[in-house]
Amino acid sequence: MVIKKGGEQDIEKVRHSAAHVMAEAVQSLFPGTKFGIGPAIEDGFYYDFELPRALTAEDLPLIETRMAEIVASGVPFVREEMSRGEARALFAAQPYKLELIDEIPEDKLSVYRQGAFVDLCRGPHVANTRDIKAFKLINIAGAYWRGDEHRPMLQRIYGVAFHTEKEIEEHLARLEEAKRRDHRKLGKELDIFTFDDDVGPGLPLWLPNGAAMIEEIEKLAVETEFRHGYVRVRTPHLAKEDLFRRSGHLPYYEESMYPPMELEGVRYYVKPMNCPMHHRIFGSRPRSYRDLPLRLAEYGTCYRYEKSGELFGLMRVRSMQMNDSHIYCMEKQFEEEFAGVIFLYLEYFKLFDIKEFAMRLSTHAPGGLGKKYVNNPELWLKTEEMVRKALDHNHIPYYEVADEAAFYGPKIDVQIKSVIGREFTLATNQVDFAQAERCGLTFVNEEGKEERPLIIHRAPLGTHERLIGFLLEHYGGAFPVWLAPLQVAVIPIADRHLDYARSLATQLKSDGIRVKLDARSESVNYKIRQAQLEKAPYMLVVGDREVAASTISVRLRTGEQLPSQPFESFREMLRTIIATRSGDLR
Amino acid sequence: MVIKKGGEQDIEKVRHSAAHVMAEAVQSLFPGTKFGIGPAIEDGFYYDFELPRALTAEDLPLIETRMAEIVASGVPFVREEMSRGEARALFAAQPYKLELIDEIPEDKLSVYRQGAFVDLCRGPHVANTRDIKAFKLINIAGAYWRGDEHRPMLQRIYGVAFHTEKEIEEHLARLEEAKRRDHRKLGKELDIFTFDDDVGPGLPLWLPNGAAMIEEIEKLAVETEFRHGYVRVRTPHLAKEDLFRRSGHLPYYEESMYPPMELEGVRYYVKPMNCPMHHRIFGSRPRSYRDLPLRLAEYGTCYRYEKSGELFGLMRVRSMQMNDSHIYCMEKQFEEEFAGVIFLYLEYFKLFDIKEFAMRLSTHAPGGLGKKYVNNPELWLKTEEMVRKALDHNHIPYYEVADEAAFYGPKIDVQIKSVIGREFTLATNQVDFAQAERCGLTFVNEEGKEERPLIIHRAPLGTHERLIGFLLEHYGGAFPVWLAPLQVAVIPIADRHLDYARSLATQLKSDGIRVKLDARSESVNYKIRQAQLEKAPYMLVVGDREVAASTISVRLRTGEQLPSQPFESFREMLRTIIATRSGDLR
Repeated sequence: MVIKKGGEQDIEKVRHSAAHVMAEAVQSLFPGTKFGIGPAIEDGFYYDFELPRALTAEDLPLIETRMAEIVASGVPFVREEMSRGEARALFAAQPYKLELIDEIPEDKLSVYRQGAFVDLCRGPHVANTRDIKAFKLINIAGAYWRGDEHRPMLQRIYGVAFHTEKEIEEHLARLEEAKRRDHRKLGKELDIFTFDDDVGPGLPLWLPNGAAMIEEIEKLAVETEFRHGYVRVRTPHLAKEDLFRRSGHLPYYEESMYPPMELEGVRYYVKPMNCPMHHRIFGSRPRSYRDLPLRLAEYGTCYRYEKSGELFGLMRVRSMQMNDSHIYCMEKQFEEEFAGVIFLYLEYFKLFDIKEFAMRLSTHAPGGLGKKYVNNPELWLKTEEMVRKALDHNHIPYYEVADEAAFYGPKIDVQIKSVIGREFTLATNQVDFAQAERCGLTFVNEEGKEERPLIIHRAPLGTHERLIGFLLEHYGGAFPVWLAPLQVAVIPIADRHLDYARSLATQLKSDGIRVKLDARSESVNYKIRQAQLEKAPYMLVVGDREVAASTISVRLRTGEQLPSQPFESFREMLRTIIATRSGDLR
Repeated sequence: MVIKKGGEQDIEKVRHSAAHVMAEAVQSLFPGTKFGIGPAIEDGFYYDFELPRALTAEDLPLIETRMAEIVASGVPFVREEMSRGEARALFAAQPYKLELIDEIPEDKLSVYRQGAFVDLCRGPHVANTRDIKAFKLINIAGAYWRGDEHRPMLQRIYGVAFHTEKEIEEHLARLEEAKRRDHRKLGKELDIFTFDDDVGPGLPLWLPNGAAMIEEIEKLAVETEFRHGYVRVRTPHLAKEDLFRRSGHLPYYEESMYPPMELEGVRYYVKPMNCPMHHRIFGSRPRSYRDLPLRLAEYGTCYRYEKSGELFGLMRVRSMQMNDSHIYCMEKQFEEEFAGVIFLYLEYFKLFDIKEFAMRLSTHAPGGLGKKYVNNPELWLKTEEMVRKALDHNHIPYYEVADEAAFYGPKIDVQIKSVIGREFTLATNQVDFAQAERCGLTFVNEEGKEERPLIIHRAPLGTHERLIGFLLEHYGGAFPVWLAPLQVAVIPIADRHLDYARSLATQLKSDGIRVKLDARSESVNYKIRQAQLEKAPYMLVVGDREVAASTISVRLRTGEQLPSQPFESFREMLRTIIATRSGDLR
């Protein structure tokens, strides 16, 4: 159930060895080749070459064939050590290797040989070329020597290598699927969002289909949080610099913030986080233990000035609508509150059919106290233990990483995996026992004394931007009915069926269903294809028979055809499926 | 049903005449008084005096008594004309009047006499002091001569005058009620919103009770607009300066905008309006006549840098969540679309029990074409006629004001009156036949040619800030159930009733009801008083009898007591009242 890490050294040796074999194959096909570097990478390997001519896609099968011969020949990989001088002599005709040799600090250098081929290399490698069981070359690209645009451009060949052919096939299918499901591609095809040069990079404009999803997700959050005892607030998107000085965002976080707006001697900033605003609301009047836990929730938009080069579709943007909340509680309420947050996650994971996830608990390191971490060793141990307990008691799988906590308390990062195997960091939960002091927040406890509340920062649905990016790839655009921008397409076969079709659409609309009547004079197949492209879960095709019998024929997005039925029974089914946010279509 | 304008000249004459009578009274009580000006104002009049001593509240009855004598004496108001020289001689002892005399451009000046008193005045006045039927002095304030802080500070006395004493009483009661219902006062008492020095002036933080209202109002807008065929979008709150240059907000609107954020050579502004964003969405792909009308709706937050001195509670703020929409349509669709918008207004007025409203149609003036107004005389006449038709055909009362249109088309301002008689400008509707060109928006018409869409800007619910400010005063905080931040207070009489009370609260909560269980060990009366202060529409008081019979006793906010009933019947009634957004409590 949990994402597995580690145990991957073996396959890395295979991949690195495949790079050497590819280098030998290229040398035998192109005598005089100059070699750059050839490391193992995720899923495979590459090697950079200086060649007498530009490679084309047609060259890859030839290189693969030669590689297969080398693999089949079953020669061993042999390690040798030598002095820098010996190495320089051995690679005298290889300028890039000579450059690398001069930079190696050790006196002893190692090389690896297989058959007649030798490469400067630290290793390790597999024992024999036969240990390379399954590989495939997939791509050619240009790459500057050492990534420096002032150095020569080499030719890089990418390959993949796995233990079995089956794994390669699966991997390539996954790559293909990932390309097909790329949220930027689907986002465009399904009219979810767009960017605009005049508005600016990293600032998505949500088109009607995307806004429909946002509204549904907010409705989900509002309903769920209401059930879990949250109250909602709304806070401004900008504030005076004073607020961010008090909260500590300035100057420490300034680099990630949009610059200030200065007027009449006052500087305003758009908010990079909602916390300081919520803290002001907590502090806006005297609080007593009776008010706790106080759970303030808001879909607050935050603004962070990510570097242009780091912007990526919806995954890294500059304006984020965040499923934010801050829980103010007493120490004795902490475990229950923290567990409550974890349950929220599990509820959402179940709803979105997310089966693979991992919780990563970052704790402090005693050496960092008073430097990286608030100097309160007891509270650190206590809150970390409280978090562990909350996780253990509720059988939540997690793993621990020391010395990676936030400044003000332990945190949990939530990693999820989409159905196509892509990993996303959905959100961070933080325990905070420092900001209450910094922002002067107190409550009067049962003994009538002032006390600092503990604060939990949480955002189980992350941001609309990242969540919808994830959901696009997770579902490949074929969303559950409640979330689908277009829920029902009504398709009259001919103009004489238009009135009946329109009455169906009107009735569905009055139920709040997002329905489209395709009244164009096009063929039924054309209209079905269109609705299919829009991933409408249901298509109601309406012809003579349906009009005569006052029934409907329902075609599902999956291609399945439901038996002819009275409209009311479909309408009832649809109501239930949407009200329960079911993932099923029937 | 409609706010009446005009026909108010008579009462204005009364008020202006009362000012003269007050001046005479003050002169007789304080010989040597120097007179400033004394106009009629809404509901009454004032006069500015330079006096030998500071007035106190005790002086007002004395002045009133003297005024009553003058009124009773029944002397006529007599107009006289004279040359500037004669006037200077007549007012030789009155420096402020001399200053005014020198500024009058005409050669003939008029004065009005009643008895021995004479004042420089254009008139008109009532015929006789006896025509002043009902007046009352209400206030003393300081006022700089001509509003200039470098000139002398005079003493201003405010009075009210109406046709009857009854009207005065009603007016004063309304003033008292208005003070009691002031949205700033109620907003604090009911925990609706707060301001924070660190966040900044004009930037409200919405507390849970206010956020609950906002959520309900948005739900209302989303449902209503869905029914009316709108689609929703979400757009960023900031954008590059390019966007606002193209839209024309820069440099013309710059003064009302927050200053730019400048980074890496690019200037970003927080948006003062949503239009340019919606226009970019319209323009984000080719549009055809089939896409029209396209109604893009968004609760977009806009930022305007109002001057500090002009900020006023929720009524004039710097951050506004706007019930915005832009309708892109063809000319032949215009009348229907415009009427649709008007119907939206009427729907909302009915819902909020707003019985008095006025629509003010501002049209162009031919002389301003090419200067104040886009130079397209035909389109002006056409769109103005279309607006008139839409209003007439739907029997919407309105009045016209020439030469007050927007630059790009005719507009309608909507004025509403709260139940206590305060007037608010709720929103502005604009017809726009210029921005499409400016922003390069086109669609392909039925003949396959490119054409500019007409644009309607509309915001029937105005902004959350102003609407909630209005609703606070309109309802005096006693909101209809669907809108009430706290809907039900459950009040157990003793601890032994707590379990039953809790089960009622839990069931109501599962219906989405905002319910509060008052579990404190306080007396029932104390808890009822508390719930009353919070204006909870329903209080469920639960004691032995209720627990034994599994029933409930319902006390309404009005003080009325409903007969004991099964919980389920109350629950059902509540569901209906909320679902229909009824204004009734039973």
